[in-house]
Amino acid sequence: MASETLALRNGWVVTQNPKREIVKADVLIENGRIASIGKVGNADETIDAKGCAVIPGLINAHTHISMTLMRGIADDVNLEKFLEKTFRVDALRTPEDIKAGAELGAVEMLRSGCTSFVDMYYGQDVIAEAVDESGIRGFLGWVVLDEKFTTQKGSPLKNCEAFIDKHSGRERIHPLVALQGVYVCSEDTLLGARKLAEKKDTLLHIHLSETRKEVYDHQASTGKRPGDWLYDIGFLSERLLAAHCAWLTMGEIRKLAERGVSAAHCPVSNMKLASGFEAPVPEMQSNGIAVGLGTDGCSSQNRLDMWGEMKTCALLHKVQRLDAAVMPAQRVFDMATIEGARALKIEKELGSIEVGKTADMAVIDLRHPAMVPTFRENLISNLVYSCQGDCVRDTLVNGKPVVLDGKFTTLDRDAVVERAQIIGEKFFN
Amino acid sequence: MASETLALRNGWVVTQNPKREIVKADVLIENGRIASIGKVGNADETIDAKGCAVIPGLINAHTHISMTLMRGIADDVNLEKFLEKTFRVDALRTPEDIKAGAELGAVEMLRSGCTSFVDMYYGQDVIAEAVDESGIRGFLGWVVLDEKFTTQKGSPLKNCEAFIDKHSGRERIHPLVALQGVYVCSEDTLLGARKLAEKKDTLLHIHLSETRKEVYDHQASTGKRPGDWLYDIGFLSERLLAAHCAWLTMGEIRKLAERGVSAAHCPVSNMKLASGFEAPVPEMQSNGIAVGLGTDGCSSQNRLDMWGEMKTCALLHKVQRLDAAVMPAQRVFDMATIEGARALKIEKELGSIEVGKTADMAVIDLRHPAMVPTFRENLISNLVYSCQGDCVRDTLVNGKPVVLDGKFTTLDRDAVVERAQIIGEKFFN
Repeated sequence: MASETLALRNGWVVTQNPKREIVKADVLIENGRIASIGKVGNADETIDAKGCAVIPGLINAHTHISMTLMRGIADDVNLEKFLEKTFRVDALRTPEDIKAGAELGAVEMLRSGCTSFVDMYYGQDVIAEAVDESGIRGFLGWVVLDEKFTTQKGSPLKNCEAFIDKHSGRERIHPLVALQGVYVCSEDTLLGARKLAEKKDTLLHIHLSETRKEVYDHQASTGKRPGDWLYDIGFLSERLLAAHCAWLTMGEIRKLAERGVSAAHCPVSNMKLASGFEAPVPEMQSNGIAVGLGTDGCSSQNRLDMWGEMKTCALLHKVQRLDAAVMPAQRVFDMATIEGARALKIEKELGSIEVGKTADMAVIDLRHPAMVPTFRENLISNLVYSCQGDCVRDTLVNGKPVVLDGKFTTLDRDAVVERAQIIGEKFFN
Repeated sequence: MASETLALRNGWVVTQNPKREIVKADVLIENGRIASIGKVGNADETIDAKGCAVIPGLINAHTHISMTLMRGIADDVNLEKFLEKTFRVDALRTPEDIKAGAELGAVEMLRSGCTSFVDMYYGQDVIAEAVDESGIRGFLGWVVLDEKFTTQKGSPLKNCEAFIDKHSGRERIHPLVALQGVYVCSEDTLLGARKLAEKKDTLLHIHLSETRKEVYDHQASTGKRPGDWLYDIGFLSERLLAAHCAWLTMGEIRKLAERGVSAAHCPVSNMKLASGFEAPVPEMQSNGIAVGLGTDGCSSQNRLDMWGEMKTCALLHKVQRLDAAVMPAQRVFDMATIEGARALKIEKELGSIEVGKTADMAVIDLRHPAMVPTFRENLISNLVYSCQGDCVRDTLVNGKPVVLDGKFTTLDRDAVVERAQIIGEKFFN
């Protein structure tokens, strides 16, 4: 594939370039990169995108992919009961289970046009195998926490370093340093993780101010809110992607912005767990913070569905402020594409369809009944408010078609599903 | 078909009976009705439901089906601008357009397992044609309002009566009397409509307290909130299905409950228009009011997708009260099935899978990647939090398969889509 050329012809190309242009054009892919946009001549392979939109691959900025096997295991309960149930199940898991969950999650994401995900978990070695085999792009964070809280064998920080060393430089696998959160990470652990990320030149990822309890508990023990405290200890940096950020104050937002921290907003998970009222996304954005969208894990979402996440994001902010204009479709679509890439500090490579960028893209069927009628005027609206996974026809990662006409070219979808159903059984008894 | 027997074999039957039993069983359909549930012998036709759930057909308790053509025409704007845009487009519409919109809406609903819908619009004659041809069940309300506000030719009340007379007794078409709302309906109009519904023995349907402005305006002109005023003028009755009810007080809820009024909750539309903060659904339910779920029209939802409506309903109430248990999956699934039927006063015929009831049902593929793993323990959760339209395999109305393996046995889906796309063009210029 690497040296071949592939042309996507006659689609509506939703570029997400700085002008947010939508153009009727062909896209030529060469060596996994976008070589030209416009009228394209001969190519080795062609995908006919007539009646379709060609969009940048969606970026899921926060999840726990292996928890896909735990779908529906702890619903309609408050967070304490939720954690009790999921931790009990988590302890039962084998590497085989973690891989099966990752495969199932990759199937769901790729089938629905999501080409990149940021993951936080242990056992990332087997998740990397699933990434490798499925064709998705994974930003894989090995989770670090104080040794006294972990079920990992050995030192989480050393496990994380070994994981990064093993996978650095691999195609589609971007190892990084993840942290569970201030409630299980001491100052030493946090600063050790920050140092490791610097040494290895990776992203840092953390859960931040997801619940009110987390904020109050931290305030009770340190006298400071988590965002203020992390600023004061010198943890915040441009490497940091903070998930949730549901309970930040304006003061904390300004400190995150000052340090170049980015955020992953997870509206469905926050709503379902009733843990986050409304993350102050408009305020973060107006302070220049790059905010991506994340599904969180399937035990709380309960899907890895960026379309549902986008729509819910728009709805949540509108209703909370009784202002239908506060979170328009274009801004939400940005969060799932170019702003997500900016949150991952990879906007020079991903997040838009521009010459020179990596060819992670999806082809959307505009003749799906849910997308009709579509014109240039309502295309972004329809993507955010009407599109769902089954409107996606093709998904490309690194210029390679991973899903074509709804069928996988990589994994055996049915085998993944059967395996997940069989393994899932032990968590429900 | 009428005299033939049809067996759905080996599915998980989500009965929605009073005990909410889920049983591994066959379902025998005879003359369009459920003849038995259990082990079924020979039948003329068989649908293999192994690995599937068999559920009651979903009931969309409030929509404007023909507005499906207006998808994405007025997004991210507040209600006044929304109405200005949609009214401008509405004035352009021909009967052919109304029918094309209804066909597109019927395709979307049937494909996703929704077998009944309550509609409020004018031009219901052509909508009835689309209902007839598509195989869906329509509760069709011809909209009545003061003559000075309408674009209808002649008296809306007389148009409504003529519509009812023409369609009474037809299969799958249930005509009813609809009212736009207190802001365009005088006391005379409202009581005339109520009288007509009694004379013809139909339902009454109205928009009630959708926006704060509607409530304040009515209070300014009458001294009373809409619910209180409708009670005082003697309009409320068991025939009434009130859509939205977003701004009801506890006092109004008690008056609605006393008169046996039911409600249609439309969370997505209320959120998207930022018009309703959180309808007091738990309070209506604890007062005994039957609350169904409605998508509202596509210009505000922007889909006729009962799956998204269910999930959003659960999420909205959880986040508004910071209580993950306030709106559990079973209760939400009830709203889309048996409580929806109760809201339409048709629970003896529809809303559950019980012997003697009409066979409106859907078959859900539990091996869709989004539904895996599914066990009895998380089946209702997965239906509410994970299922979407493309997980629906078959849809039956009156015992007749309308969608089989995702394909329509009635309408030509592609022709409906093409027509809608072509007609839609005039609304976007």
